[in-house]
Amino acid sequence: MIEVLPVEGLPEIGPGDDLGALIAGAVDLRDRDVLVVAQKAVSKAEGRVVRLEEVEPSAHARELAGDDDPRRTEVILRESARVVRSRPPLVIAETRHGFVCASAGVDASNAPGPGELVLLPVDPDASAERLRRRLRELTGAEVGVIVSDSFGRPWRQGTTDVALGAAGLRPLLDLRGRRDRVGYELHTTQIAVADEIAGAAQLVMRKTAGIPAAVVRGLDLAGEGSAQELVMPAERDLFR
Amino acid sequence: MIEVLPVEGLPEIGPGDDLGALIAGAVDLRDRDVLVVAQKAVSKAEGRVVRLEEVEPSAHARELAGDDDPRRTEVILRESARVVRSRPPLVIAETRHGFVCASAGVDASNAPGPGELVLLPVDPDASAERLRRRLRELTGAEVGVIVSDSFGRPWRQGTTDVALGAAGLRPLLDLRGRRDRVGYELHTTQIAVADEIAGAAQLVMRKTAGIPAAVVRGLDLAGEGSAQELVMPAERDLFR
Repeated sequence: MIEVLPVEGLPEIGPGDDLGALIAGAVDLRDRDVLVVAQKAVSKAEGRVVRLEEVEPSAHARELAGDDDPRRTEVILRESARVVRSRPPLVIAETRHGFVCASAGVDASNAPGPGELVLLPVDPDASAERLRRRLRELTGAEVGVIVSDSFGRPWRQGTTDVALGAAGLRPLLDLRGRRDRVGYELHTTQIAVADEIAGAAQLVMRKTAGIPAAVVRGLDLAGEGSAQELVMPAERDLFR
Repeated sequence: MIEVLPVEGLPEIGPGDDLGALIAGAVDLRDRDVLVVAQKAVSKAEGRVVRLEEVEPSAHARELAGDDDPRRTEVILRESARVVRSRPPLVIAETRHGFVCASAGVDASNAPGPGELVLLPVDPDASAERLRRRLRELTGAEVGVIVSDSFGRPWRQGTTDVALGAAGLRPLLDLRGRRDRVGYELHTTQIAVADEIAGAAQLVMRKTAGIPAAVVRGLDLAGEGSAQELVMPAERDLFR
């Protein structure tokens, strides 16, 4: 059995906040728990916030923005390694981390204030690893940490949460070579368990009610890994 | 809090099996539970199995099959509304239901026997609805039902389980118009909760150990809806 528990009572997160201490004070962590924390909370604690009034949009940003604020599009382009699709003002971009998502992860909702945009963490795996160490230091518990965000998908409606950063767990469950009950080698070779865990956590995280973290208990995925393993290598990608 | 419980002790499923009775006998269902059942089990109960020896491959199937069995590719093409991408022997297809996935959902793993392929249910929403009614009849519990399968994703490694069929729940959580704590209207407008539930269930379903169902308890998504709501309409799809 798995349990998914919301981490309730966290305050609004700001730059420099000790997210680990806030979480350790709000929930009783145990060994092998997986803590899932929303990217937005991590980014705000890390000061990854841009004020629109400080942004000068380029011609390219103005072109892609359509009727939207071109300063916002400028920030998106700065966070992008390449634009994958665009239909003004919508931009689907690949981030420097290799994630393909709307607006390169740049978002105004749940920003500290109006006129501000929150960016993805510079290195979400490093963010997860720092949080894991801090939680170990404060609680003694050996937990896995996932930094999650809501991504849209081609061909399917609605977002699901996925893992942008991970530490203290193996994000891919590798079934290659294993056989089913009649001896046939399994076709699905790798399961993106970290993404499924992020999605499970989202089910108890209420964006509008300010619950930016959840604990998933009862898994046994302890090990070392990073969310970069979830990024499809270009040579295997039929959609690049 | 949400709990995810594996449904253990189910036998190997065959054509004509009363899946509802088998599940009702294996787990204690409560109102508002969501039962997630693997597509493979549903398809086998519904007799959606093809024997390779009865298949004559077309020229197109031979071309796409590469070094693989062209009869398998022929079955994939028969299940496809269109081929989205191919790199022999890999075929990504859109099924008649509108799902885009590897091999149009055709799979040999966990098939009843060697030389057999399992197809997706003809109408997974109807399968979910039948199972919901049968479970209500047998247990009195008002449950939601999801028929799940493991899909790959562009740009990301590994599969996650998604909902192919749904009954007795709303598969999309609509946040349009809701505001965050500082009053900004949320950008992520719809959350594909049925896909996240399918993924959560996968975490306790062991493909190799023959656990084809799980119960997700503690959600409150009761309502009417179908997994067809999760299929992106062509006019909104930037990846068509």
